[in-house]
Amino acid sequence: MPPKALVFDAYGTLFDVRSVLSRCEEVFPGQGQEITTLWRIKQLEYSWLRSLMGRYEDFWRLTEDGLRWACRAVGLSPTEAQLEQVLQSYLTISPFPDTLPALAKLTKLGLPLAILSNGSPAMLEAAVTNAALTGTIAHVISVDEVKIFKPHPSVYALAPARLGLAKEEIAFVSSNGWDAAGAKAFGFEVYWINRMAAPIEELSSPPNAVIASLLELAELLS
Amino acid sequence: MPPKALVFDAYGTLFDVRSVLSRCEEVFPGQGQEITTLWRIKQLEYSWLRSLMGRYEDFWRLTEDGLRWACRAVGLSPTEAQLEQVLQSYLTISPFPDTLPALAKLTKLGLPLAILSNGSPAMLEAAVTNAALTGTIAHVISVDEVKIFKPHPSVYALAPARLGLAKEEIAFVSSNGWDAAGAKAFGFEVYWINRMAAPIEELSSPPNAVIASLLELAELLS
Repeated sequence: MPPKALVFDAYGTLFDVRSVLSRCEEVFPGQGQEITTLWRIKQLEYSWLRSLMGRYEDFWRLTEDGLRWACRAVGLSPTEAQLEQVLQSYLTISPFPDTLPALAKLTKLGLPLAILSNGSPAMLEAAVTNAALTGTIAHVISVDEVKIFKPHPSVYALAPARLGLAKEEIAFVSSNGWDAAGAKAFGFEVYWINRMAAPIEELSSPPNAVIASLLELAELLS
Repeated sequence: MPPKALVFDAYGTLFDVRSVLSRCEEVFPGQGQEITTLWRIKQLEYSWLRSLMGRYEDFWRLTEDGLRWACRAVGLSPTEAQLEQVLQSYLTISPFPDTLPALAKLTKLGLPLAILSNGSPAMLEAAVTNAALTGTIAHVISVDEVKIFKPHPSVYALAPARLGLAKEEIAFVSSNGWDAAGAKAFGFEVYWINRMAAPIEELSSPPNAVIASLLELAELLS
């Protein structure tokens, strides 16, 4: 059965979290790479830990907290102005090179395209506008509605509710293996864009397909 | 107010998770270090992710799953016998050099000493017996009773229930910064044994004290 909507993860899937590296390197010369890596790890860890602790704060706050931690971990004591300068780069985060061409092809399928993301509404709006995706993405859905992060099932449940579809009618697309596993456990059809050729996670039944890029997805579904 | 009981995290706090390295290196020569590091990261990630997904499996299973993932990540296809040989090392995991002397000192305080751990009951029993701590630790409490992992508050709530104390009367001791944060958010008095001199987590109010070893804790409380 062909899907009736495509729902995309945002960070790591449509937007390249490594694209904040150049700003980070500009503000913290010679340490941008290390900070960016630790920052992303901590941002995700905090999303899982705060969800389990029942202490939700939005993803913008977690992104800031992760950056603070990463700076401390490499021995820096940044000023508030430096932190702010680096943080702002998340609002103009770059899409992957294949994001726009793949979405242009997928639009021709005539299905609604949506985002379902950990990002706060303001972060997502900024990123979508900056990437000129406003007309392409029909629904931008943030976990902020349920105040808990992926992979909690109530997050994935936002998509069928908003789209007015059964979960089995939705194809979910993520580059994060753990997100693909969470979405599969919830009951979506799942496409894992395994950009980094990572080993599959031991968390749920495997995704419906593992592919290398969004362009391959467009070819597969066209 | 002096605490009425001391409750310890197990892995990373009393027991050195790096002590499985030698077995890992024996079975996978030249790759033991890398596998051991990835293994621990994945074991923890899976505890958080499965808790959020509502798909609890016990910590023995997660430990095996994490090892499988770590082996794949370094390009290995281990046999079941190799995996089993490495996994078994968790049952004879070594205490840190300061664990036994510190617990011997703390015993003199006349307070009950307990363990509250992600470990499965069988894993914890094996580790406690192997380290000759059976007479020292009065209560071994596993998250398995509530089928969710730390830092979910229902895990921490097991300790006051078992000990018949208010949470404010319990001092909780962990080397894992995120566990210390979870315990603090729950309402324990918290001692963070910061063995690795890690930056403090941005997750809750700070622990009551940050110290470098269990021996320092024994001095502090004596």
